[in-house]
Amino acid sequence: MTATVHEVTDLYPTRQGGEPRVIPRQDPVVQGTAEQGPMDAETLCGFDEKGYLTIDQLITADELQLFRDELKRLAEDPEVKADERTVVEAKSNEVRSIFDIHKTNEVFRKIANDPRIVDRARQILGSDVYIHQSRINYKPGFVGKDFTWHSDFETWHAEDGMPTPRAVSISISLTDNYSFNGPLMIMPGSHKHYISAVDKTPENNHKQSLVMQGAGVPDPETLTEFADKFGIDVLEGPAGGAIMFDSNCMHASNGNVTPYPRSNVFIVYNSVENTPVEPFAAPQPRPEFLSSRDFTPAGS
Amino acid sequence: MTATVHEVTDLYPTRQGGEPRVIPRQDPVVQGTAEQGPMDAETLCGFDEKGYLTIDQLITADELQLFRDELKRLAEDPEVKADERTVVEAKSNEVRSIFDIHKTNEVFRKIANDPRIVDRARQILGSDVYIHQSRINYKPGFVGKDFTWHSDFETWHAEDGMPTPRAVSISISLTDNYSFNGPLMIMPGSHKHYISAVDKTPENNHKQSLVMQGAGVPDPETLTEFADKFGIDVLEGPAGGAIMFDSNCMHASNGNVTPYPRSNVFIVYNSVENTPVEPFAAPQPRPEFLSSRDFTPAGS
Repeated sequence: MTATVHEVTDLYPTRQGGEPRVIPRQDPVVQGTAEQGPMDAETLCGFDEKGYLTIDQLITADELQLFRDELKRLAEDPEVKADERTVVEAKSNEVRSIFDIHKTNEVFRKIANDPRIVDRARQILGSDVYIHQSRINYKPGFVGKDFTWHSDFETWHAEDGMPTPRAVSISISLTDNYSFNGPLMIMPGSHKHYISAVDKTPENNHKQSLVMQGAGVPDPETLTEFADKFGIDVLEGPAGGAIMFDSNCMHASNGNVTPYPRSNVFIVYNSVENTPVEPFAAPQPRPEFLSSRDFTPAGS
Repeated sequence: MTATVHEVTDLYPTRQGGEPRVIPRQDPVVQGTAEQGPMDAETLCGFDEKGYLTIDQLITADELQLFRDELKRLAEDPEVKADERTVVEAKSNEVRSIFDIHKTNEVFRKIANDPRIVDRARQILGSDVYIHQSRINYKPGFVGKDFTWHSDFETWHAEDGMPTPRAVSISISLTDNYSFNGPLMIMPGSHKHYISAVDKTPENNHKQSLVMQGAGVPDPETLTEFADKFGIDVLEGPAGGAIMFDSNCMHASNGNVTPYPRSNVFIVYNSVENTPVEPFAAPQPRPEFLSSRDFTPAGS
């Protein structure tokens, strides 16, 4: 028997020390076609260009209420709060994120496998898709904290071993998004450029990076160039709507001093042809709840 | 000789302990008339209703450049940085505000006494006006901090002894205000209601309140009611424009993770018929640079 060694070329090197640099994206953004449906050519073209698309009303009013009730119930459940897959803010002792909800909760398992979403993800990625990560996020009013600019793919590549940015996220809004309550901001077009970060990944980085960002955060000079070049889109929109965005979008959100909280369901779909290998820039892979190793196609 | 004791009735009690409560404003908002100029009846009516007005282009491009240069020069001057009237952020050692600029700096003394501003303030307040406070503010990109909801008048009444809200502020933008870089937010109409705060004023409160807000901050329940009732206006607008707002407006600003800083010149005009008495809810008045005792009419 001959052992076959698969050499994996790192097309998106990061966290190697040296100087920060920008690498052109090596892979197409949209890999499916309009013929597949459900989205038309114009929608796909917009996604290719901007790196995101919005869906005004993805879920029904009944579903919205159901999801909100479920979020509230989970956030108050002591067992959920104690789980390692739940992020609790130390200062307030309040739940901020609950991961892995597509595995642990029937309501969210169902929506994560719903054709309204899965068929769109399939169409963008041009293959079957599986769920790389899922969570619900809760950003309270008055004290909602910010999230600085980053590309999700940079982290998934460095720490989870995701080879290419053939992944798409959906954020389903459970509350209204105003310009003033810390909505998602995206630099449209930034997804076609990859910022190679400098600092190496610390051991067990995810334990603190879920609470505070560190490794992989782009340098201020490159971010300023990006903002000047691409601009910043502020994604307002009503509860029940959704945003789908490319895994390499440069995105962020400001803090929130208004009384209006923000919550959403967040699911990441990765192509079944893009399953993770060894991390490209971390001592070991992150836990299963951050980077699923179950590659069963969603919606099947 | 007979000593005359002037009894001052406190129409806006605050920081007395007990429960928070909302008191209807006891004084008119606009005390001048359209005949006086320079503003027309519609503009005055809008100010009365919303508690603020915007001026698209108040200063010239040359003035804008001059003010920016001056701000930069001052922020880098070690003597200015060491002055007690300058607020320096401990963490970054960077200048955030410089007070009393209408007294210490020729460029800003001039604009603070300019008829473009003073005549508008006179018209709103229906009398001669003097400068209660002035400052330049610098809110950096990436790490710009938020400012939670408050009424300036509540502080000026409690800590400076300003009897009634017959005062108006102007904020002249030296940078573009986008929805995403922490612009001023105002609850339109809130200026007709006064939120009486609960907690008493600590000794030397201003020393820490310039850096972090504390006493006089309204309770979350009342703020939520206000936001639901009045809504939130986000004041976007280009550099060189200005916002004038009533002293009792409920206002705030979010943090700023974008690369775009915000800076402005901020001047408070008070009616010469509304000069401060003893503080209504503080052990002693704040220093002169926060609450001027020079009542010389501006522009004279």
